[in-house]
Amino acid sequence: MTNPVLVEVLRGSIVESAHRGAIAVYDAAGRTVWEIGDTAKPVFPRSAVKAIQALPLVESGAADAYGFGNRELALACASHSGEPEHVETARSMLAKAGLDEVALECGSHWPGNHGATVALARSGGAPNALHNNCSGKHSGFLCTCCHSGIAHRGYVAAGHKLQDMVRDAMEAVTGAAHGVDHCGTDGCSIPTYAVPLRSFATGFARMATGERLGAERAKAAQRLLWACMAEPFMMSGTGCADERLMKAAPGRIFVKMGAEGVYCAAIPELGLGIALKCDDGAIRAAEIMIAGVLAKLLAKDGELAAELRRQAVQPILSRNGVKVGELRPADALG
Amino acid sequence: MTNPVLVEVLRGSIVESAHRGAIAVYDAAGRTVWEIGDTAKPVFPRSAVKAIQALPLVESGAADAYGFGNRELALACASHSGEPEHVETARSMLAKAGLDEVALECGSHWPGNHGATVALARSGGAPNALHNNCSGKHSGFLCTCCHSGIAHRGYVAAGHKLQDMVRDAMEAVTGAAHGVDHCGTDGCSIPTYAVPLRSFATGFARMATGERLGAERAKAAQRLLWACMAEPFMMSGTGCADERLMKAAPGRIFVKMGAEGVYCAAIPELGLGIALKCDDGAIRAAEIMIAGVLAKLLAKDGELAAELRRQAVQPILSRNGVKVGELRPADALG
Repeated sequence: MTNPVLVEVLRGSIVESAHRGAIAVYDAAGRTVWEIGDTAKPVFPRSAVKAIQALPLVESGAADAYGFGNRELALACASHSGEPEHVETARSMLAKAGLDEVALECGSHWPGNHGATVALARSGGAPNALHNNCSGKHSGFLCTCCHSGIAHRGYVAAGHKLQDMVRDAMEAVTGAAHGVDHCGTDGCSIPTYAVPLRSFATGFARMATGERLGAERAKAAQRLLWACMAEPFMMSGTGCADERLMKAAPGRIFVKMGAEGVYCAAIPELGLGIALKCDDGAIRAAEIMIAGVLAKLLAKDGELAAELRRQAVQPILSRNGVKVGELRPADALG
Repeated sequence: MTNPVLVEVLRGSIVESAHRGAIAVYDAAGRTVWEIGDTAKPVFPRSAVKAIQALPLVESGAADAYGFGNRELALACASHSGEPEHVETARSMLAKAGLDEVALECGSHWPGNHGATVALARSGGAPNALHNNCSGKHSGFLCTCCHSGIAHRGYVAAGHKLQDMVRDAMEAVTGAAHGVDHCGTDGCSIPTYAVPLRSFATGFARMATGERLGAERAKAAQRLLWACMAEPFMMSGTGCADERLMKAAPGRIFVKMGAEGVYCAAIPELGLGIALKCDDGAIRAAEIMIAGVLAKLLAKDGELAAELRRQAVQPILSRNGVKVGELRPADALG
């Protein structure tokens, strides 16, 4: 099955490039609400499922024991851009568990935010693992280990008790098997499992509604999602699509990008979960897709839908700042 | 027509993302040697045709008048990574014409080379137009204007005499009309014209062989292509695919990337030109495609073909530097 073109890249009036993809919109019972393309094919969710991966942090009692509020919980679900607030919050999370960045096994890279990279270089600094976009998630993992009395060393590896807890949460929420034959290694060194988009969509409908999760897990899931919606900057960073989308409707839209063009999202008031992947892995296209889908699903709120449609069209600028093209939803998504 | 998948992105043993595209291999007479996908559809060549756009610099006599050697000519055909040698060479080209970076109308951006960006920031500096990856091409444009007595102000605009010269050279070499209805604006503010891939492939076969160009243009074309092959670093930058590919067979392979997943290339000894585009605009995939095509076309040279096949498979590393996947040619290209 060839997925349809969902995003067009225009230069002047000519389509210069195009992005294909698949989109699943499901409810908590696993019923199809809307689908485009092949949503049964297993895809790696990458960072788009960090909120599910953070369930053990709350369920273990670690989040309460260390006094984590919305900012820390949002950072545990984040792909952040390495700005000073992200770095300092991750550092303070680790400090609560008596640890520092040496315990992080995610590796390091320069901040995703260009201004933060320039500022770090200007100060004579260099990045460490706290600047890694996954440092909040890893700090959450380490806090879970410390609070639960699990030796944290090697916590990124498949087979470590922490990763078993994470995988079990993923299986329970999505309802999909997470087998070794569908396992790869993520950029931050933890296991990632390829599962159908429709399972992720169902899972995020459950995260948003609490349905079919059991009382304790439902409470933890909603606490995490509402923390993310309350602190979109901690979840992403200055000018990021996730921040922009969640700020458009505070408390009403949850979105999370994942590498290689993935998005998971939820609209609590509609009881819907969304998962999508751009076939070619382009995040620029996945950002257009998620804005376009949200605009369709929230069409009844005219003002919000208009803002989301606006965000679904992004200008392409020359190096002189003049608009020379744009990314926009294709007909299949329009 | 749906173009085939030409590049697969693997994570572990699972195909995580895939890139479609089209490839044209033509000779100077415009005969098809090998084709994949739709090569008749107009595509913007972007920076992949800089060597053709540099013909007026040589043909006008400006290159000789200012004493430009291989390094300056290669930079005039370059998408460089803003390393100090690139910046200084562009500056010296402009100085020969009595100009400085103020005359450049390409806009500025931080260097493509991350180390150069960090060094520039550490030194307290900020980028100017010399750091723009197109500054060599624009310096060549300005030198052409100055030597030819053309007022240079506004040289980037369609309708300026310099851009007419560039468009005329493009039309003559590719044999394809460059009409206003197929014109867009490139990132560096000059016009770019959407033309079939097969026309670009034919054009680069002509650039490499000199056939069907006339004696003077043939000489200028070969001088430019050989300058690029002699100075692959000036054409691109440290660790760039173009530098790697041209260093694999000095003087035998010409390649040039263009934004949105384009490559133009030539193999002089076979009299062939190549043009390709990744449908979704991913340069990471276009790099795999061009290495894969070159390996096929040069299969008779076993050692070189093996090196090109090696370059056609690129590892994907975790942030800890461990291989977790790879980009590789798909069956249609394998």
